[in-house]
Amino acid sequence: MRSITVELGERSYPIHIGSGLLQGIGERCQEAGFPLRSPLLVVSDSEVAPHFLATVESSLQAQGYTVVSHIIPAGEASKSLAVYEEVITTAIQAGLDRSSAVLALGGGVVGDLAGFVAASYMRGIGFLQIPTTILAHDSSVGGKVAVNHPLAKNMIGAFYQPSMVLYDLDTLRTLPPRQISSGLAEVVKHGLILDRDFAYWCRDHAAELLELNVEALGYALERGCAIKAAVIGNDEREHGQRAILNLGHTIGHAIEAVGGYGVFLHGEAIAIGMAGSALLAAKLGKDKSIYEDTVSMLSALALPVRLPAQYGEDELMAAMMHDKKFKEGKMTFIVPDAIGSVSIVNDVQQSSVREVIAQLKKEESPW
Amino acid sequence: MRSITVELGERSYPIHIGSGLLQGIGERCQEAGFPLRSPLLVVSDSEVAPHFLATVESSLQAQGYTVVSHIIPAGEASKSLAVYEEVITTAIQAGLDRSSAVLALGGGVVGDLAGFVAASYMRGIGFLQIPTTILAHDSSVGGKVAVNHPLAKNMIGAFYQPSMVLYDLDTLRTLPPRQISSGLAEVVKHGLILDRDFAYWCRDHAAELLELNVEALGYALERGCAIKAAVIGNDEREHGQRAILNLGHTIGHAIEAVGGYGVFLHGEAIAIGMAGSALLAAKLGKDKSIYEDTVSMLSALALPVRLPAQYGEDELMAAMMHDKKFKEGKMTFIVPDAIGSVSIVNDVQQSSVREVIAQLKKEESPW
Ligand SMILES: NC(=O)c1ccc[n+]([C@@H]2O[C@H](COP(=O)([O-])OP(=O)(O)OC[C@H]3O[C@@H](n4cnc5c(N)ncnc54)[C@H](O)[C@@H]3O)[C@@H](O)[C@H]2O)c1
Ligand SMILES: NC(=O)c1ccc[n+]([C@@H]2O[C@H](COP(=O)([O-])OP(=O)(O)OC[C@H]3O[C@@H](n4cnc5c(N)ncnc54)[C@H](O)[C@@H]3O)[C@@H](O)[C@H]2O)c1
Ligand SMILES: [Zn+2]
Ligand SMILES: [Zn+2]
Repeated sequence: MRSITVELGERSYPIHIGSGLLQGIGERCQEAGFPLRSPLLVVSDSEVAPHFLATVESSLQAQGYTVVSHIIPAGEASKSLAVYEEVITTAIQAGLDRSSAVLALGGGVVGDLAGFVAASYMRGIGFLQIPTTILAHDSSVGGKVAVNHPLAKNMIGAFYQPSMVLYDLDTLRTLPPRQISSGLAEVVKHGLILDRDFAYWCRDHAAELLELNVEALGYALERGCAIKAAVIGNDEREHGQRAILNLGHTIGHAIEAVGGYGVFLHGEAIAIGMAGSALLAAKLGKDKSIYEDTVSMLSALALPVRLPAQYGEDELMAAMMHDKKFKEGKMTFIVPDAIGSVSIVNDVQQSSVREVIAQLKKEESPW
Repeated sequence: MRSITVELGERSYPIHIGSGLLQGIGERCQEAGFPLRSPLLVVSDSEVAPHFLATVESSLQAQGYTVVSHIIPAGEASKSLAVYEEVITTAIQAGLDRSSAVLALGGGVVGDLAGFVAASYMRGIGFLQIPTTILAHDSSVGGKVAVNHPLAKNMIGAFYQPSMVLYDLDTLRTLPPRQISSGLAEVVKHGLILDRDFAYWCRDHAAELLELNVEALGYALERGCAIKAAVIGNDEREHGQRAILNLGHTIGHAIEAVGGYGVFLHGEAIAIGMAGSALLAAKLGKDKSIYEDTVSMLSALALPVRLPAQYGEDELMAAMMHDKKFKEGKMTFIVPDAIGSVSIVNDVQQSSVREVIAQLKKEESPW
């Protein structure tokens, strides 16, 4: 088992990564300080619960906990205030008190929703993350929890740190292959922004990662979590430096918005976005090898790097402007300086972004 | 103008108390650091807005702010997730961003609701309290914000400190007399728990307080806020000592629950509860003068100290057990040791509480 600590002063917490961890969740809850007399609430979704909920419940009960579970429909639509209220109702009916905890068993949707329940139930109770997707290595570090509003994603939420993250690699075996690649996009993103060697390592070990080799995947998730933890440790509430985590996300979010959520998975969309950021770097005079290498890494992980022809330039530009607001025709982008290093560039011209979009649609090499 | 600071490290904030402050709210918002380019949202209620909203809006606009207002129906029923969602929708439609702020113009209902909006909109934006009730001197200090769930009051919320509290005593002139007395119950409570001289001062200046004499009321609210600030400064997230603020509240909440909310106002119910706590003190061997003096203070402020005959002992006991959970027939109460000093007593017998309730119903002296 690998363990790292997210350093946030009195809100610091450990991330444990390894095989067979679900069976020990009861003991971990004791370790986290959750008292036996207070009921625990496990939140999971309709895809994840059939595989893993029984194991989690048994381990907690064997330790002496009272457990109640709430299963939400799988998918982004469950990150709503309506489902949030249903989970809160379950918590009240089960008698959760101020010493209780919420356990999030699932991907980023379950983590974000259950985290906001934990943050706001009785003004904040215990919270433990049990991520079951690769993408959730990202969402389970950093303390951002949220639900969506019909008018905008992640609009309602909090910064709320878990007491512990328990990452059982065995749970990833039931993930569909596209979800695996999608999650690995955020892993390699962490290399691209801060760790050159790790980024190349991901490319060179892509086959093992896609096969969920425990050794390779354990290392990759440890590095991914550690890099994210280092960034947020310096900027817990996203005032500045934390923005580098958004590499590829401005274009990626526009692709998700224009295509409709779910056409490209989140990691797929930001893979195209990261290819776009590397093109933007070339436009700003950086080495073209940044683009070539970024594409080789993403392709090795079975991720897309080109934009289908039907994505309209105007629509994508409109979506980006909605997302971020251009200031006098200029826009902020995270741009690579080299593999493993990025800058926050505040004065990117709209025209450059348009050119990047056009290049992303070319079948052949962009230059 | 009187000013005090709530000391909470990097979350410290000032409370300004005085006459004619609403007119200066625009400048205060600049002082609080809210940038002119980000829209501000004023939340108020249907009773308060007709009197004061225009003044607030003009002052903000004169300073150069873009302002949008959301008026909720007056009353506790507006502290709901449904109204919360409506306010969030207004915020999104008005384009509030991460540098925006929510201004709560009203009593505790507006403060609690708007505070939870501020705490959770985009994971937390600026927040400024403009209390317009006396009771809100209590709710605007301490950072507890919340909405109710149909199954339980204040179930969903956060600890979220405002950037500033601006207490304009002129706004209190439109308060109905019962609301004035009800608010003063919490003021004298702060004296009863921690400041003997202030408690007697409230009795001796009751007439001026009830007339809203600016000098007397300014002093009383300053002391009340300062005492509450001192308690919560030592225990921001309510782990221990903060419980002394609940003097009179266990019985008070039971009275509100059994009578139906709104029969007794909150301050009236806790006045009866504080009389009950003093009776309990006598039962535990403390001086009977604590009760006599408590009653004289509350009566001077036109507050009730007796329980109407129709309140059933069994129903009140059931409501208390629902609220707090007896542990093996014992219960925690805040009990005065003297005027200006209280203890947290963990092993109060059910039978003693029953006797206190019976005594509270007697027309003549309880002994
Ligand atoms: N809080 C943050 O910092 C942060 C960061 C990134 C993303 N997010 C959020 O995370 C969400 C996306 O996360 P996600 O990709 O994990 O989505 P998800 O939770 O929806 O999971 C993707 C799909 O895989 C299924 N699934 C999950 N685990 C499985 C398993 N072990 N086996 C089989 N199927 C499984 C789920 O039921 C779902 O259908 C978005 O809502 C996004 O906003 C949050
Ligand atoms: N957050 C906390 O720490 C805390 C502490 C105590 C109470 N509270 C909450 O505060 C609420 C009670 O506060 P409240 O008594 O101020 O209630 P309130 O906000 O409902 O105000 C009482 C009534 O007076 C009206 N009103 C307010 N200001 C007025 C004015 N200046 N002129 C005329 N009418 C006016 C309101 O419209 C309302 O009808 C409860 O929801 C309670 O849970 C919170
Ligand atoms: Zn992402
Ligand atoms: Zn109260």
